[in-house]
Amino acid sequence: MATTGLEGVVAATTRLSDVDGERGELVIAGFPVAELASNATFEETTWLLWHGDLPTGKQLDDFRRELGAQREIPEATHRLLRDCAKADVDPMDALRIAAGTISLESEDQSAIVAKFPTIVAAFWRLTKGQTPIAPREDLDHAANFLYMLDGEEPNAERVRGLETYLNTVVDHGFNASTFTCRVITSTGSDLVSAVVGAIGALKGPLHGGAPGPALETVFEIGDAARAEQVLRGKLQSGERLMGFGHRVYKVRDPRADVLGAAAERLYRRAGDMSLYTLARHVEATAIRLLEEFKPGRRLQTNVEFYTALLLHGIGLDVSLFTPTFAISRVSGWIAHALEQREAARLIRPKSEYSGRRDRTWTPIQNR
Amino acid sequence: MATTGLEGVVAATTRLSDVDGERGELVIAGFPVAELASNATFEETTWLLWHGDLPTGKQLDDFRRELGAQREIPEATHRLLRDCAKADVDPMDALRIAAGTISLESEDQSAIVAKFPTIVAAFWRLTKGQTPIAPREDLDHAANFLYMLDGEEPNAERVRGLETYLNTVVDHGFNASTFTCRVITSTGSDLVSAVVGAIGALKGPLHGGAPGPALETVFEIGDAARAEQVLRGKLQSGERLMGFGHRVYKVRDPRADVLGAAAERLYRRAGDMSLYTLARHVEATAIRLLEEFKPGRRLQTNVEFYTALLLHGIGLDVSLFTPTFAISRVSGWIAHALEQREAARLIRPKSEYSGRRDRTWTPIQNR
Repeated sequence: MATTGLEGVVAATTRLSDVDGERGELVIAGFPVAELASNATFEETTWLLWHGDLPTGKQLDDFRRELGAQREIPEATHRLLRDCAKADVDPMDALRIAAGTISLESEDQSAIVAKFPTIVAAFWRLTKGQTPIAPREDLDHAANFLYMLDGEEPNAERVRGLETYLNTVVDHGFNASTFTCRVITSTGSDLVSAVVGAIGALKGPLHGGAPGPALETVFEIGDAARAEQVLRGKLQSGERLMGFGHRVYKVRDPRADVLGAAAERLYRRAGDMSLYTLARHVEATAIRLLEEFKPGRRLQTNVEFYTALLLHGIGLDVSLFTPTFAISRVSGWIAHALEQREAARLIRPKSEYSGRRDRTWTPIQNR
Repeated sequence: MATTGLEGVVAATTRLSDVDGERGELVIAGFPVAELASNATFEETTWLLWHGDLPTGKQLDDFRRELGAQREIPEATHRLLRDCAKADVDPMDALRIAAGTISLESEDQSAIVAKFPTIVAAFWRLTKGQTPIAPREDLDHAANFLYMLDGEEPNAERVRGLETYLNTVVDHGFNASTFTCRVITSTGSDLVSAVVGAIGALKGPLHGGAPGPALETVFEIGDAARAEQVLRGKLQSGERLMGFGHRVYKVRDPRADVLGAAAERLYRRAGDMSLYTLARHVEATAIRLLEEFKPGRRLQTNVEFYTALLLHGIGLDVSLFTPTFAISRVSGWIAHALEQREAARLIRPKSEYSGRRDRTWTPIQNR
């Protein structure tokens, strides 16, 4: 038996999200993703995942204040982020390193969620030689993140676009980072340890690490008239088309529709539809060519394609894409950690041994 | 279907170790644990796991020099350890936080293994208000760790005892920390991210976090004549006896024998067998009473019981037990990460949804 990747193996039950890859459906805490994503603030989505119901007005006010009050990161973490920027580490490594230090002050679940945007924004500014901007307590989670990037209070369209993105990718069954979080939690370990492990998993290009290249292909094509030629060239040389295909979804990823609609709204309000229109054309061409080159594989647009288009429209740099994914997913990770704690069962699969047996010691002079 | 913990599910093949819980056998890279543990230096065991064969004299010399040269940790890490000591964080959190910063300089597998003892020893001294002791390049891995704790060059018996311990617990199938390491690696992430996640899992009391209490029970009993009375009292009040029982082993954990023999040799050479003799008596009494209170459960001495006795005999403080476990296991984690990279397959199990469906949005004023 080879390494299976546990595909198709049910590791646990969850009431947090349901991914139906055959039907292309995603349910988040009972809501179809499209129903939740465009209505909720990220505070509401986080509360929903942690408590099972939408917050009342009073609960939401309290929760917003609670998050707002915990955004600051300690001086030790700032110093470390400066070291990270100087050493030119990967933004996800910087987030992992800095998030690990949350243990210095608090392991409260709200504190973890509250500090992620502060870490990401501070590191991003430091890599550009700029001073980090202190968080504001009066802004909502998404708005404050955008504010900390450039010091401008963002308009409602950008905030709504980002909230829709954060809500859409907040949870997605037992993906590798969420599963990592649950395995760590299953030993009785703490939330920061679990979240830090999950960041490490999300960094991997097979998981969260590749939303950039999808958009780069669109930029490379530049003009709708060149789409077929460029994509055909890539497929003929055996290159993988970024932004298409997903291990779980055999039909269109429902998140792609939600993010696509949000991107369309954002670009339309901004008054320039050219990139959006080009992306749509590239998408249609890619799907047609993928069916020609890989018949029967049913490769469809995945979440990365419209993530890139939407986050670019909001004004985020490519290097912020995966860290912004983490800013969302951390709420899901924590919800899974809390659920795993209730299960109170160590996750420990078996392995099958394929090595030698009964070796005897050879002293070094005889080797 | 409830949360199963993946018990009995084969997640992958491995040539690194084989745990036979029914027969009480542990094979490490082809060697029965008893054959490897008392013969090898920790450098040899690490090389064996990473390369599949014992090193030649030349390879071993080079590897020792390579490890020796990479023991220093950067000033940023020292500063962070001082912050950790000041904030009184858990020693495993301090190790996780500091190990995470290895990304600032190098992600080389030898560098990770080389720096673990330096981090653990530095933090331990800082928590006692002492200045860390710089590593020495001329000492072997185990000897240098003991040297950094108190500045004394350790005698051969303590070094041999520690090496036997490090070799014995270096790898053990798909335990939760090793599995965490493989899940993170399976996304294409880096070694430091994988190891940091694994530290978080090892911290949990259901995994590596409980070797202290086993010895505390022995100290609490103090006198062999009190063993039955104290243990019976604990069992009658429903308390769990620490150091007995293991999820995988249904017979005696083979590591207990190896560590027990090493402890006996160590205490004998030190000229005081009283604690060892008491521990043996406590063990025999506990097994007899466990059979009486939990008939058929076949609860046997596990690795924690003799870990505690051996490490105490070497002179390690209880707070160093789990971090010392990590100093060993990191070589196994890295070996598994390298093996997982070869498999090149994302580990992503399924979950089963038990929550609601088709919820519709309720505006906040209607909640």
